[in-house]
Parts: sequence; C-alpha cells; structure tokens
Amino acid sequence: MKNSLPLNEAQSCVLQHAMPSGTEQIDLLQSLERVLAQEVRSNRDHPPCDISAMDGYAVRAADLNIVPAQLLIVADIKAGDLPMLTVQARQCARIMTGAPVPQGTDTVIRVEDTQAVAADKVQINVSAQTGKDIRRRGENLRTDEVVLTAGTEINPGTLGILAMVKAAEVTVQRRPRVAILSSGDELEGLHDAFDANKIPDANSYALMAQVQALGIQPTLLGIARDTPDDLREKLQQGLQYDVLLVSGGTSVGVHDFVRPTLEQLGVQMHFWRVHMRPGHPVAFGTTAASKVFCLPGNPVSSMVCFEQLVAPALRNMMGYARLFRRTLPVRLAQAVAHRPGHVEFVRVVLSRDADGYLATPTGSQSSGVLLSMARADALLIVPNESKGLAAGDQAMVQILNGTEFEQDNGSIV
Amino acid sequence: MKNSLPLNEAQSCVLQHAMPSGTEQIDLLQSLERVLAQEVRSNRDHPPCDISAMDGYAVRAADLNIVPAQLLIVADIKAGDLPMLTVQARQCARIMTGAPVPQGTDTVIRVEDTQAVAADKVQINVSAQTGKDIRRRGENLRTDEVVLTAGTEINPGTLGILAMVKAAEVTVQRRPRVAILSSGDELEGLHDAFDANKIPDANSYALMAQVQALGIQPTLLGIARDTPDDLREKLQQGLQYDVLLVSGGTSVGVHDFVRPTLEQLGVQMHFWRVHMRPGHPVAFGTTAASKVFCLPGNPVSSMVCFEQLVAPALRNMMGYARLFRRTLPVRLAQAVAHRPGHVEFVRVVLSRDADGYLATPTGSQSSGVLLSMARADALLIVPNESKGLAAGDQAMVQILNGTEFEQDNGSIV
Repeated sequence: MKNSLPLNEAQSCVLQHAMPSGTEQIDLLQSLERVLAQEVRSNRDHPPCDISAMDGYAVRAADLNIVPAQLLIVADIKAGDLPMLTVQARQCARIMTGAPVPQGTDTVIRVEDTQAVAADKVQINVSAQTGKDIRRRGENLRTDEVVLTAGTEINPGTLGILAMVKAAEVTVQRRPRVAILSSGDELEGLHDAFDANKIPDANSYALMAQVQALGIQPTLLGIARDTPDDLREKLQQGLQYDVLLVSGGTSVGVHDFVRPTLEQLGVQMHFWRVHMRPGHPVAFGTTAASKVFCLPGNPVSSMVCFEQLVAPALRNMMGYARLFRRTLPVRLAQAVAHRPGHVEFVRVVLSRDADGYLATPTGSQSSGVLLSMARADALLIVPNESKGLAAGDQAMVQILNGTEFEQDNGSIV
Repeated sequence: MKNSLPLNEAQSCVLQHAMPSGTEQIDLLQSLERVLAQEVRSNRDHPPCDISAMDGYAVRAADLNIVPAQLLIVADIKAGDLPMLTVQARQCARIMTGAPVPQGTDTVIRVEDTQAVAADKVQINVSAQTGKDIRRRGENLRTDEVVLTAGTEINPGTLGILAMVKAAEVTVQRRPRVAILSSGDELEGLHDAFDANKIPDANSYALMAQVQALGIQPTLLGIARDTPDDLREKLQQGLQYDVLLVSGGTSVGVHDFVRPTLEQLGVQMHFWRVHMRPGHPVAFGTTAASKVFCLPGNPVSSMVCFEQLVAPALRNMMGYARLFRRTLPVRLAQAVAHRPGHVEFVRVVLSRDADGYLATPTGSQSSGVLLSMARADALLIVPNESKGLAAGDQAMVQILNGTEFEQDNGSIV
C-alpha cells in the first residue's frame, strides 16, 4: 500500500480497479444515459424510398427548360402514400414533405416557387437542377449498416436512432450497485430523535445525491457506531455491493479502527491519503468483488473526494468514455491563497462578462460549510505547484450538477 | 396570432405562458434536482457546541507561553462524547476531530505539533493563538436561521443541508405532466410490424428522452393518423396534460388539418413559425390548462426546437431560475455558410487545444440525419444577422446532454 498519492495517480489507481461490470438487456424506454454494450445495425433503408424534402411539386426537370411553365397535376401525394402511377411529360404531382417521389419525376419544386392556375394546373416559376429537394433512399441509413457501436452513450439523439431501427430492447453496461455507510457515535440519523448535542448525518444524503446524479440508486446502510462489532458488521454488509462508500473514520485516531477491520474482512488497501484539499484523508481498497472508498467525515471534503475519485470510477464501471467533469477556462474575481504540495478545489460561482467566465469563491471555504458546496457552480482547480492565484488570473473550473444550465439564453435573437 | 417570430420573442412568449404549476411534498430521498417551494430554517445550532477541527490536544493557550511545554492528559474525547470535566492549568485533553472541546480549554494543538512523553503526558512543541482549530457552536448554522430559500435547486450539497436540518420531507415545485404525440400516415410505431415503405417513428422517442433528461417521465400517446377523427381524438387526449408535444403536421399542407383541429378544441395559437433553422415550422398554443407545441416531423428539427423552446418552458414550470443550456465560447474548425434572416443551430463536436475549445460540425447538417444530433456535443449558434462564419472565427455553443463530462481530467496532477 502506498500511503499517500498525488491526485492523478490516485485517479489512475482507482480507474484500474473500476472495470465495467457486465451487461444487461433493458427496454429502450429506460435506456437514456446508459452505455450501449452491443453494435446496432439498421433494419432498413432510411428513407425507405426517394422522398420529397419539401412541400411542393414533383416534376421532370426537363419540362422546366423554359419557365414559367404550366404543368398538369395528375396526383396528390402525401407522406405514407405508395404512388403507383408514372408521371408523364408536362405533368407533375403535388407532393408533401416526406412523401414518396412518383415514377417519372426527378426533381421537387417548392410550393413557394409556384403559382396556382387551376384546380389541376400549376405554374412553375423556376427551373431546377435535376434531383433537387429529393432525399434518396438509404441516404441516412442503409439496411445492415452499423449505425451505433458498443460504447456509445445513449443520449436523446441516439435513443431516436435506436427507435428508428426498431431496437425496442438494447444491451447496455450494467450499473454498479452502490452502498453508503456513515460512521461515528456523534451522528444522528435523519429519522432519529432530535439530540442537541449530536451532529446530523448529512454525508449519507449528499453522497446519495451525488450517486443518484450519475444515474445510480444507492442503498443507504445507515450509521456504524464506533464499536468494532458494529463497524465490522456494517462494513461486511457493504462489501456485498460493487462499491461501498464509507464516510467518516478516516482521521488519524480512528484509522486504527476502520483500517484493520477492512483488512480483516479481506480488503486490500491501495492508498490512504491523496495530495488534495479538501479531501486529503481519503482511502481506497478492493476485494475481488468490491471496491471501498473511505471518505472524510466532513461533508464538503467527502463531496469533493467523490467528484475527483468516486464519480470517475462509477462512470468507468458503467462504460462511459467521458469520466471527468467538464472544465472551463475562467478568470478569478479575487485572489486565492495556496501553498504548493496539493491540488486545491475552491467552490466558486460563475458569472460572465464580455471577456468570458469569471469565478468568485462562494464565501467561507472551511470544509465544514456545506452551503459553500450547495451554492457552487463549479470547483476551481488550484494546481499542486501554485503559490497562489491573483485576481484576474486565468484558471480552470470543473462544472458541477445544474451548471449545464444558465439563466440567460446566450443572447439569441 | 403572430404567424412568425424571431427566436427570442418566441422564447419570451412561451415563458410567459409556462408558469410554475403548483407544489407537492416529497421524500428528501427523491428530491434531487427538484426546486424548493418553501423556506427552510435550521432546527439546531451547527456545530452543536465548540468542537475540535483537528485530531490533537485541547489546551489552555496561556499554558504555552513557553514551549516546549509538558501537559498532563486528563481526558480522551472523541466525536459524540459529552465531556463533563473542566480542564485545569497545565492539563489538557486528547481530542478527535469533531469532538466537543472541554470546559477550561480554549485552543486545539494538532497531533503533528506534539510528542508523546508518557501514557498521561504530552509535550506541546508550539505555542498557539487562542481559539485556533476550534469550530464554534453555530458557526455553520444557527437555530431558526433561514438556510435555504424557496426557488433553490436541490443539488447534492443542498440535499446534504436538508438532511442536516432533518428535513425528511420537502415541499417542491410540481413537475408538469407531459404527453407526446407523433402524427403521420407514413409512420411505423416501435412495436408495429415491419413495413419497408414506412418511416419508423423516431420523434416520439427522441422527444421522450429529451423530456426524461429534464427529470420528467412523459406519456407516449403513439401515432395520430392523418384523419380528422383520429387526430382530434388524440389531440383531445393530449390536452388533458399540462404540456402536449405534437411532432409532424407542421408543414404547409397539413396545417389546414392540425391547426383547425387544435382551434376547434379551444387552443389559442400564439405563433406558427420561428426564425430559426432547423426548426422553422414550430407552433405554440395554449388552453386554460394546457400548452401545445407543434414540432417539425423531422427528428433533428424537432430536437432543436425542443432545446430552444420546450426545455426552457418545462424548466420554468418546474421553478428553475436556470432555463437555458449553458453556452461556451469556441473557435470554429471550419467555415459555416449562413444567410441572414434566422438563427441557425449547427451540430458540432468539441475538442480542445491550448487556446480553448474548437467546434467541428458533425458532418451532414441535413435535418434528416439524426446521427448528426446523436454525435453532437453542442449546438453552434449562428446569429440571425451573420453572413457566414470563417474557420477560426469565435462563436458560442450550447452544450448538450452528456457534455457536462469529458474524457480527460483537466490536467490535474
């Protein structure tokens, strides 16, 4: 076991052990944000035949060498029709967007470029290039063509494509089962009687929400008390899950308690400290079937550790290629002090001016102040080697849940 | 009814009619991403008493005027204890992070700054400022203090705070009930028998996924056929919901069909065209109880319309302050042609170099090509008045589902 690691090495270590954990077949309707574990081929040509890209008239381009030209309307074709006729010279068919182009025609003229003459006659005012405004059979998808490969994340567009090839069921990467355990005699559970001297268990719920935000419904194991028996029993229960998150029990004195218990239960510890703040005392261990993260008892530290180490691991297990929070370049609204030796994550709100995004710390950065995390749009990354950042300096932030939306509409007119 | 509107006016019109639609009380465990509809006050002081911020020794700072100093250890206090003793001069208490600071002491010395001397004696090597490493009672939250206001989005940090004040149930904005209807004789449903001449209904499913991505489980009403009776019956059914999304039936010829049917059903139409591409033929109407969006039959157009008009409306109804997709500044990897007169949304993938984000169109921008949407990280905004953008030009993109994560870790070490 390496006691203490830089954050990037801790991330590599965690990801090495967080492999995709099998596949399952699910209903297409439940598949959003899952990752495909199969190749998907088209079951048809799409469009199924040459179709009109516009509302207008299907014509023979050769009839429009001299315009305006008057053509006889011999059919009225809408989407879903199967036109059987063949259109002859000086004839045309009224046609709707998506409707099959009839035999004999080679071009569609938009309705805007025509003029009604009689019930069965239209005047075409423009000539046109052959093939204009026709979408060709198989232009989007050809029968048996691979349209989606394993590893594709199912976003709304992907889900639409799956519906298009009639994949009513899809094989996707399984989601890991996650258990959450808080530890400490000082903790009061959400449904425990009020005790003014206790500290309510916020960690289990903040962690639950972070896990939920990744699409996984975790199991809350409650609070382990500071006795070897209770801790052992709860940890053993937690090791039945693919991933166990234990919060609390990582400060110096308590180590002697959690670590030997985990080791007795067959957990191999990989590290017990990471060069990051908040979140320095974070540990990671594995058994053959399970991964354990020991997160700090402090809610902000625990949440920051989750974002840096647990979330990438869970996303890797679910088969995502994108494991990390998106980063944005920002300017600092105020100075941030820092001593080299660890990466620091400062909770910030984002605002915008003509020069781009501005990041302002959310008040007290004490790791006890969960409000600083609740208010944050992003985590400002203060690099390991930094000696402090000045107001106006460039830096990077990781965007947090909710920050993919903003208040203004990006100045659209 | 205004027939045709610029996008920002269409957005204003839609938002004016999309008011929050009531509140409900739900379990805290189900509250992630909901919007609080109540003020939340603290039920306690937090911390509940003065507690140690570190593992170490609780001391009287006055005893450390000359260091090193040896002190007698008279107690061993861990989190959750209720120490009853008073520490006297030249005495100290071993103390754990989060444990109550005992009477008589005023400062905590970290264990790293001490040295064991005997089982009941410790040598303190540093003097300290009074109050150092003690977190004061009520420092984070005071009893009855407002900690969260109505309108707060419940992110993981907020959910932790709600657990901290023991809000096991919370009052939140209700989610609108949403129905989705596709229309057209050419459409084949997901579970219909294969017909090579039909076009599979992708829209219902892509829209379903877009609605799901906002946290709402919509109802799929299936496919309305191109007969007045079927359309009328299905539209009537859809108007029982808070929001009805109809895809298809917005091209010129079919208007005469959908629009009078909606109007017969008491729908007041507000616009029928928006100066945007794709998505130009999009309509919006309301009844006293319901809102109807008529989206283009084309899946890409329908999805783009959803992002620009429907998503902000649904988020407004759910009480969010952040209604719009976050925009990022990018440089264009290649030229994009444009004629003034409408806002255009180009599907792009994002990459990054030393100068920031680079946007590359995802191949064919034909609105028939759903793959271009499935592959897109973002929608590039080509402004109304633009005469085209050159490679290297600055522009803005709206990030799409999934893009809040990326493949690299932002160069963290």
